[in-house]
Amino acid sequence: MAHHMQQMSQEMQQCIQNCQDCHSICLQTAVTYCLPTGGMHAEPDHIRLMLDCAEICQTSANFMLRGSDLHTRTCGICAEICQRCAENCDRMSDDAQMKECADMCRRCAESCRQMAMAKA
Amino acid sequence: MAHHMQQMSQEMQQCIQNCQDCHSICLQTAVTYCLPTGGMHAEPDHIRLMLDCAEICQTSANFMLRGSDLHTRTCGICAEICQRCAENCDRMSDDAQMKECADMCRRCAESCRQMAMAKA
Amino acid sequence: MAHHMQQMSQEMQQCIQNCQDCHSICLQTAVTYCLPTGGMHAEPDHIRLMLDCAEICQTSANFMLRGSDLHTRTCGICAEICQRCAENCDRMSDDAQMKECADMCRRCAESCRQMAMAKA
Amino acid sequence: MAHHMQQMSQEMQQCIQNCQDCHSICLQTAVTYCLPTGGMHAEPDHIRLMLDCAEICQTSANFMLRGSDLHTRTCGICAEICQRCAENCDRMSDDAQMKECADMCRRCAESCRQMAMAKA
Repeated sequence: MAHHMQQMSQEMQQCIQNCQDCHSICLQTAVTYCLPTGGMHAEPDHIRLMLDCAEICQTSANFMLRGSDLHTRTCGICAEICQRCAENCDRMSDDAQMKECADMCRRCAESCRQMAMAKA
Repeated sequence: MAHHMQQMSQEMQQCIQNCQDCHSICLQTAVTYCLPTGGMHAEPDHIRLMLDCAEICQTSANFMLRGSDLHTRTCGICAEICQRCAENCDRMSDDAQMKECADMCRRCAESCRQMAMAKA
Repeated sequence: MAHHMQQMSQEMQQCIQNCQDCHSICLQTAVTYCLPTGGMHAEPDHIRLMLDCAEICQTSANFMLRGSDLHTRTCGICAEICQRCAENCDRMSDDAQMKECADMCRRCAESCRQMAMAKA
Repeated sequence: MAHHMQQMSQEMQQCIQNCQDCHSICLQTAVTYCLPTGGMHAEPDHIRLMLDCAEICQTSANFMLRGSDLHTRTCGICAEICQRCAENCDRMSDDAQMKECADMCRRCAESCRQMAMAKA
């Protein structure tokens, strides 16, 4: 986080970090874990949702980094997609890797929801 | 457009193309025209909005390319941001370059609005 | 292509277009065709390479759109990755969809190679 | 970092983190600090290089997250662009914000250089 950005709210700094962490775990897990595992882990709808989640997290983080007031809109849809991704990962959550991914998606969804509701 | 995608609706194919064209003109114009021109063209709020518009167009196109039903949500916000970007470019639209950019943003906003309203 | 960019070389305009088309066909084919088809089409190494190819094409196009002289470097690696992706698609090229993807990757590789060799 | 990725080398985990941090500081600093500051901070060549650096860092991180052996190639060019960005920021480094950005670019360049030299 850049020095002069210490004036950025703690909530937004945390939301950017959550978006970057959620992006990382979704992209990494989809390609290096779910695809090789096969079966329901490699179903097209699951892989697509993991890639969708990774990309919208990256985009939302970038809107916040640019200081755009439109981040409330990208965070709103990010919260929705992360929530859906968490629920989909939960279907396989007797698997520690998918449970970890679901938990990260829920943390990101929660912080994005807070950002989306805040006054810009 | 991939061969087997000829079953993708004409409307969606056109919307993907509009998003890619709008991404291109906004990114290119912001960096290679507005920044060197200076003055109101180089104001932080204008450059930021052009970069926001370029990124959300890219993200929306990618959701449609992945065949995600969540494209209705990314297209909804893309329509909103393109519309705002068009209006901002219009403030400088006695300038042919900015008028061209505003026109592209409006075309993209219109097709994204149609996609956002369609049943997924 | 923005109006004032008509001074951009025909070669670069074509290379940007090829990168965007190659990005589109690789991302779309990987998620909406290869994953549902299964078997060797859905092997992790193949999907990963298609996603790598899609992303480096997008990045190279963006460097050219920003007018960066560093595009020679991104185009160099883009040519290399597109070539590798084409060869991998060829392994399945009795399949019209994969053949179309391989052909697009080769066209993109060729134009990126030209850009990479040009004086910046 | 996903659980099953604890087998990823410490060096690669650190390099991914450096790329994400360098992406963040370059994008944020360019738009929310350099553009409003004006003068040499807002020169097109400087803003362009900061945006180039932010994007190649994001792309390199994504290649490593996907477990692609081609990360050696993206890390090679990332090291080069980060180094160039650091030197450009140094021209303004009596400014604490630019010095911080230059330092982050150098850390990222160093770890990407290590990744680029490693056997894939």
